[in-house]
Amino acid sequence: MDGGRLIALDWGSTRLRAFLLGADGTVLATRQSEQGASTLAGADAFAQALAAVTDGWPELQMLACGMVGSQHGWREAPYAPCPADAAALARQALQVDARFWIVPGLMHDGAQPDVMRGEETQIVGAFALHPELAEQACLVLPGTHSKWARVKAGRVTGFATHMTGELYALLRQHSVLARLMPADGSSAPSSQAFLAGVDAARKDGALSHQLFAVRTLGLFKRLAAEQLPDYLSGLLIGHEIANELKAATPERLALIGDPALCARYALALGRFGMDEPLQLDNTAPAGLWRLAQTMGL
Amino acid sequence: MDGGRLIALDWGSTRLRAFLLGADGTVLATRQSEQGASTLAGADAFAQALAAVTDGWPELQMLACGMVGSQHGWREAPYAPCPADAAALARQALQVDARFWIVPGLMHDGAQPDVMRGEETQIVGAFALHPELAEQACLVLPGTHSKWARVKAGRVTGFATHMTGELYALLRQHSVLARLMPADGSSAPSSQAFLAGVDAARKDGALSHQLFAVRTLGLFKRLAAEQLPDYLSGLLIGHEIANELKAATPERLALIGDPALCARYALALGRFGMDEPLQLDNTAPAGLWRLAQTMGL
Repeated sequence: MDGGRLIALDWGSTRLRAFLLGADGTVLATRQSEQGASTLAGADAFAQALAAVTDGWPELQMLACGMVGSQHGWREAPYAPCPADAAALARQALQVDARFWIVPGLMHDGAQPDVMRGEETQIVGAFALHPELAEQACLVLPGTHSKWARVKAGRVTGFATHMTGELYALLRQHSVLARLMPADGSSAPSSQAFLAGVDAARKDGALSHQLFAVRTLGLFKRLAAEQLPDYLSGLLIGHEIANELKAATPERLALIGDPALCARYALALGRFGMDEPLQLDNTAPAGLWRLAQTMGL
Repeated sequence: MDGGRLIALDWGSTRLRAFLLGADGTVLATRQSEQGASTLAGADAFAQALAAVTDGWPELQMLACGMVGSQHGWREAPYAPCPADAAALARQALQVDARFWIVPGLMHDGAQPDVMRGEETQIVGAFALHPELAEQACLVLPGTHSKWARVKAGRVTGFATHMTGELYALLRQHSVLARLMPADGSSAPSSQAFLAGVDAARKDGALSHQLFAVRTLGLFKRLAAEQLPDYLSGLLIGHEIANELKAATPERLALIGDPALCARYALALGRFGMDEPLQLDNTAPAGLWRLAQTMGL
């Protein structure tokens, strides 16, 4: 019987997910806790959260990725510079104690440096699951801070973060636009309004100007109140895509992350004439397994 | 002795300013209250706020501009469509009672309609004070919702709103960027950081991406924590200017509003190679006087 070979941890800001992996990397068990890195302070708090989420599991090597390795995490792990492959990430992993390791983040240096923590591991997982992506691709990881990573010959050559999800939440909850909208989660999504927002963004106007249209379209009843959140979402995602495709149109593009959000991006990408992209759910367990193997854990 | 000829009211969302104007439009007295339109609900509350701010002043005709005429104001005044001149605004003013009138807002229709309330009166005031601006100019009114109005032959031909000030406040107070910054108002402004933000915006990258650099520049200590708010301000104002100048580079540009904020825009405009623009403080009293004359009040 397979008692397990590795404990893999996807430890983000707001959530901790633990996976017991078997001898071939299969997920034998999954647990989840709300003890994300932003909810914890001090090494003891992290150690306790880890003990709680792995309680009763065998004493195996543990590899974690995500904000657990940030300045405000358990211990600050380094950032590996781009271009970087799985070997470079494995080499720079931080050992916290005899059994616990943290994957480094990834940095893309330049006039405006960019960083990720956790997504580098999802990217390695995507390589493991779909080796053709490692050859040459653009990997998009939508979210609070969406990442667009350019990949060639197994290495992440560069990437850009867009604060799309965070801007949406700020405008949805706190701005003058919020006052015209119904309470969050109270209405069915409208793809029509979402695509109208995407189409507006494709016209390449200023985002700070186009956002004001969410207000005026509501004011003049050209969109119903319950359509405004989707129009706003379409505008923001549309601007993100328009700008990234302007930088370079990839031949092969894949979406990684929450299926509903990836479906939204796929819909928007279609509006830009892109083929239906490959969509992958959380690839962090596969990435942690691959990195652990590379590290010889 | 001049007992007064008109009471002019600049009645915005958060503030009410009252001016007692003499026979030639001179400001004889000024009063201010915090009873902005967004703090009041119902006609009685507005009538009481008006009585309080004009207490003891002679019984004159009163003309108000601003959010007092919005959906959530005292009474909803119409929007005059662009192109519009002072005569068109005067013609569509809303009479609330025997002595109290509200200036209409201005609307620029299109795929994404745009609106203003209050700024149309400041624009008329700028025409009164500087007739050369009425010939042909671009009038910029920076603020929570900055307005860029294009003017020709005494008429506003079109305009665009940018949510620059509101985005700044949201990001400064509620976002992941805020966590790296010192408390609001606790540090001296840095023009160097502001201009670095403007210069980044001039490179025409995506705003949602460039905003994330506020975080990474702080993370890697390339900017001090107290410089980050100014860098953020420079980015946002820079994107606003870059996009508007892309639409059309005006030969004559003037800034209207709060002197400190106008100075900030003038500094940024210089970075775009624009000449030092004319800067005007609140021109609402002059605009209300001109409109009242046109209306025959």
